[in-house]
Amino acid sequence: MKNTILVVGSVALDSVRTIYGRTNRALGGSAVHFSMSASQFSPVKIVGVVGRDFPAPFRRLLQRRNICLKGLQVLPGKTFHWKGRYDRGLKNAVTIATHLNVFEYFKPKLAPRHCECGVLFLANIDPDLQWDVLNQMCGPRLVACDTMNYWITLKKKSLVKLLSKVNLLFVNEEEARQLTKEHNLLRAARIITGLGPQIVVIKRGDSGAMLFYGGEVISLPARPIEKVADPTGAGDTFAGGFIGYLAACPDWRSFRVLKRAMAYGTVLSSFSVEDFSVKRTGRLSKSDINDRYKKYVKSLSID
Amino acid sequence: MKNTILVVGSVALDSVRTIYGRTNRALGGSAVHFSMSASQFSPVKIVGVVGRDFPAPFRRLLQRRNICLKGLQVLPGKTFHWKGRYDRGLKNAVTIATHLNVFEYFKPKLAPRHCECGVLFLANIDPDLQWDVLNQMCGPRLVACDTMNYWITLKKKSLVKLLSKVNLLFVNEEEARQLTKEHNLLRAARIITGLGPQIVVIKRGDSGAMLFYGGEVISLPARPIEKVADPTGAGDTFAGGFIGYLAACPDWRSFRVLKRAMAYGTVLSSFSVEDFSVKRTGRLSKSDINDRYKKYVKSLSID
Repeated sequence: MKNTILVVGSVALDSVRTIYGRTNRALGGSAVHFSMSASQFSPVKIVGVVGRDFPAPFRRLLQRRNICLKGLQVLPGKTFHWKGRYDRGLKNAVTIATHLNVFEYFKPKLAPRHCECGVLFLANIDPDLQWDVLNQMCGPRLVACDTMNYWITLKKKSLVKLLSKVNLLFVNEEEARQLTKEHNLLRAARIITGLGPQIVVIKRGDSGAMLFYGGEVISLPARPIEKVADPTGAGDTFAGGFIGYLAACPDWRSFRVLKRAMAYGTVLSSFSVEDFSVKRTGRLSKSDINDRYKKYVKSLSID
Repeated sequence: MKNTILVVGSVALDSVRTIYGRTNRALGGSAVHFSMSASQFSPVKIVGVVGRDFPAPFRRLLQRRNICLKGLQVLPGKTFHWKGRYDRGLKNAVTIATHLNVFEYFKPKLAPRHCECGVLFLANIDPDLQWDVLNQMCGPRLVACDTMNYWITLKKKSLVKLLSKVNLLFVNEEEARQLTKEHNLLRAARIITGLGPQIVVIKRGDSGAMLFYGGEVISLPARPIEKVADPTGAGDTFAGGFIGYLAACPDWRSFRVLKRAMAYGTVLSSFSVEDFSVKRTGRLSKSDINDRYKKYVKSLSID
């Protein structure tokens, strides 16, 4: 189970509108986007909750990618439903409605098959729940988590407690600044590593991502995309490529491995934004990924 | 003269305020920032204008870097003076005052030593003047230019005419969008190459830069900087490193050479923002540059 990833997060239905089109109750949620991406590299098990309305085809789509859904509880009621739209620049989402539905009562309870996973990804949920899950685990070799502005504002104390037990934190630029009250990202990352995580990854959307580890920083660009249809889930897809690749490596404590993980995260998220929901990541082949990975790595090689 | 660069642009006094400090009538202007950077790689000649108040130490500072000032006219009156301040994020400058002074009457007249330069950089000035200068040249092998939102709004026709004769355009993100009415940078760059320039470089500040050439795109990140003191002139310093390196190469028509030029531009501009005015670029050694260049290139190498 050393290489198996447990992801705890939302499984949702998303209704999204961008200038390129719209979806209605499409498959979404942090655990879904993460798993679609991570399962390209390592076995993934989801712990989450859906309502009785969760469509069987979505379940099958995840299972076809060998994502274990034994930890996906089905409760009476409706599945978490997010409704949002993006501005023309596709940077900022406006939430039209958030129906938590059964997700409101989500209280993850791990089975032995989950506790023994070697890698844990705590997707963006209440830090008290993240803490709860972490404490049910039997010594995972790598713990990564994500969070958001909402929890930084409302549950900073819980989040800081969690971070002391986490190896790797994913945040976006604004969250890093909000968490540390420091504008400069290098200084912000240093403050975060002081709270616990050895690795901090700052996601910057179409400006790429930065990784901080052992006093050093790596900044990699996003892959330029001609048609960004829908950025929903790009951050979780990035984390999925990153953690999926790391989980498949015997040791993650090297810059060489971490840079490759960054590149895989970048490549996976570049696919994810090309279509709505998981339409693009759901039908990716290994060779699609490897072709784009090679081109990306080559574009950064300066000789 | 094949490798000599002629730069036509402003030589100015800048009074700048950021959260890290301020300067009063410090050395500035697009031709100055460009030259300080380009002269690290190739011989540079400035064509510009100053007033009688232009301080002799500034003149000596430029000459110590072997920048030829024979084309720097001195007119009765005062030197161009820009006064501005930056917000906390150091992204947006607010102009407090622009005193064009003698620059208002700038009408560049090239001497034979200028016309025969192999490389021409038309810094951000009125596109009619840029056109005028270009037509005085004796067949330069590389013509690059910069522009700004002001000219795109007020003199688009002149700018478009100029672009048909230019090999390389430097613009920032918003200028690229404004010029093409296209939000996506890949599509915007394609539209610009349709206007003439074979190469388009889109400068993105702390998000790095993108280069478009022959239907391909390269995106490189900025070098993360812990203390950005003053971003004034970073774009011209980038162009200086880029064009300075290209001018020293026998042929610029290769991705390998263009990527190196991008990397040198990135490195030079990363120095420039670390201090006010040309304080940092004015005292750079070859080994300062090469050390940072090697580290930057290594940070992007994924094996």
